[in-house]
Amino acid sequence: MYKVNVFVTLRESVLDPQGVAVKGALHTMDYQEVTDVRIGKFLELQVDSVDNIEGRVKEMCEKLLANTVIEDYRFEVEEVIPS
Amino acid sequence: MYKVNVFVTLRESVLDPQGVAVKGALHTMDYQEVTDVRIGKFLELQVDSVDNIEGRVKEMCEKLLANTVIEDYRFEVEEVIPS
Repeated sequence: MYKVNVFVTLRESVLDPQGVAVKGALHTMDYQEVTDVRIGKFLELQVDSVDNIEGRVKEMCEKLLANTVIEDYRFEVEEVIPS
Repeated sequence: MYKVNVFVTLRESVLDPQGVAVKGALHTMDYQEVTDVRIGKFLELQVDSVDNIEGRVKEMCEKLLANTVIEDYRFEVEEVIPS
């Protein structure tokens, strides 16, 4: 079995209104030291053993998990040895 | 300057309807090997140098970035040396 962490973030060139709003709220709460906030998705997948796990996860990201027009994605695959 | 990665995830005990929906969609797309999907938030903060960075980020998470009733959070702080 595999544990896969997928990180989906907006491309640098894309405005992140949510991030701007959170930064404003943090400033209002006196956390002026925060200079930028970017918000993305963090997906934790559990995947049964399968061949070519990296290729399969890449496909899942390209087809569903990320909107590759405005988002970037990266993932980490960790094999979980059943105890 | 610091680069802080914050991971906000639903507690294990909390149902994740979004995760269930994504799992269903992946199965429809023939990725049957996916047995569980949990979806959370991934925040990338840039923070000017400040004392007690860990404590400040913990406060930000507790007060704003995570809803600690139903969410867990963890974060990684990385010092960025200006080039």
